[in-house]
Amino acid sequence: MLTAHTIKVLQSLDKKKFRQKYNLFLVEGNKIICELFNSNIKVKEILSTDPQKLDRSDTLVTHISENELKKISFLKTPKDSVAVCYLAEEEKWEDKNIQLVLDGIQDPGNLGTIIRLADWFGIEQIICSEDTVDVYNPKVIQATMGSFTRVNVVYTDLVEYLSSTENVNIGTDMEGENIYTFEKPEKMNLILGNEGNGMRPETEKLLQKSISIPRFGKSQSTESLNVSMAAGIILGQLFSK
Amino acid sequence: MLTAHTIKVLQSLDKKKFRQKYNLFLVEGNKIICELFNSNIKVKEILSTDPQKLDRSDTLVTHISENELKKISFLKTPKDSVAVCYLAEEEKWEDKNIQLVLDGIQDPGNLGTIIRLADWFGIEQIICSEDTVDVYNPKVIQATMGSFTRVNVVYTDLVEYLSSTENVNIGTDMEGENIYTFEKPEKMNLILGNEGNGMRPETEKLLQKSISIPRFGKSQSTESLNVSMAAGIILGQLFSK
Repeated sequence: MLTAHTIKVLQSLDKKKFRQKYNLFLVEGNKIICELFNSNIKVKEILSTDPQKLDRSDTLVTHISENELKKISFLKTPKDSVAVCYLAEEEKWEDKNIQLVLDGIQDPGNLGTIIRLADWFGIEQIICSEDTVDVYNPKVIQATMGSFTRVNVVYTDLVEYLSSTENVNIGTDMEGENIYTFEKPEKMNLILGNEGNGMRPETEKLLQKSISIPRFGKSQSTESLNVSMAAGIILGQLFSK
Repeated sequence: MLTAHTIKVLQSLDKKKFRQKYNLFLVEGNKIICELFNSNIKVKEILSTDPQKLDRSDTLVTHISENELKKISFLKTPKDSVAVCYLAEEEKWEDKNIQLVLDGIQDPGNLGTIIRLADWFGIEQIICSEDTVDVYNPKVIQATMGSFTRVNVVYTDLVEYLSSTENVNIGTDMEGENIYTFEKPEKMNLILGNEGNGMRPETEKLLQKSISIPRFGKSQSTESLNVSMAAGIILGQLFSK
């Protein structure tokens, strides 16, 4: 049985303030939970409606009722288990050859999808502006389908970072160079802006290049592709060469 | 003032059964509503909290209160206006050179994103299995950002269609030919399967080829990319040549 206090603590973990206060975040569903054991993430406890299915002798697995699961789950349709995990300690990081840089991405689904893409293409690190949605947001964690265990996501002052990196800073822009003819530099940052407003002017000033996905349709709409879709198409192209 | 009956009818339009019964569907937000006037879609009436912003003399625009808007909107955060539109009449259609074929896509967001992609790449037609989510589902309409006005979406018996088309039927499959070396035939259907289960075996039997997006990351995860993301990366590649 979970105490009322435990339930209250777990329920508060959809807010960054409380994740930081308790140093905890949640991962839901056995499929993603299993990925934790191949990662550096420390699991405090697993709460499961069917502990035998998990079969972990190295981790505390507590049996809970369907009703308790419903109370602590952030999903519309709760899955089998919830893992209570410790936030990773902030470590020193260094530039990798190909990185994504996110300037104020707000939608948890977009960040999750971008982390999943990075994992697919073997991009090990994503640099985020401090106002980008938190990677430990439960919606982000679930949208990554476990990929967050394999991609290092760091938050930093972007102006400071972009001014000092040796990677070529490349943005996306309707007027930019066509991705189909663009030659990828050896060390690069692909910078993606906020869903509604794009990159901040301060960020834009620090770009060395811009690229764009040509539109083939006849539509005169000013609507561009969603940021995570654009990232996918650009990465697909960059990795083709 | 909207009558209780009107409100009830409009509220029922999130269900296919009632869209068909009343021959109506909803489009929300001035930005997408404006795209209707460049399309064949017939608008019955626009309900708006700010009719002057729309400034259409050719369409009946009725002033409604914020409170009425809240009642009829399917959005979490209702926008300015709701257009009540007539379902398009089913017309005879013919194969186009490049088409998408959807076998049981269930998620409205995915269908919407795929329609938006098709529009971006100038793909004029999408052929759907009869159990694919309805294009007039309000979540689909909103996710297309207006692209549904420029892409013809038809529903048909896929086995019958794929058996008789002259386009080359190309599926996606982890074991398929690498998209980076694949040569696009002149006339082709790109077939995309259901989110959880992929293509039906009957559909798979009618493929002439399969293609795949190579994974560059070291992850051993069996998790593949989301279907709409995969579609975007493949189309990005197909159109590069």
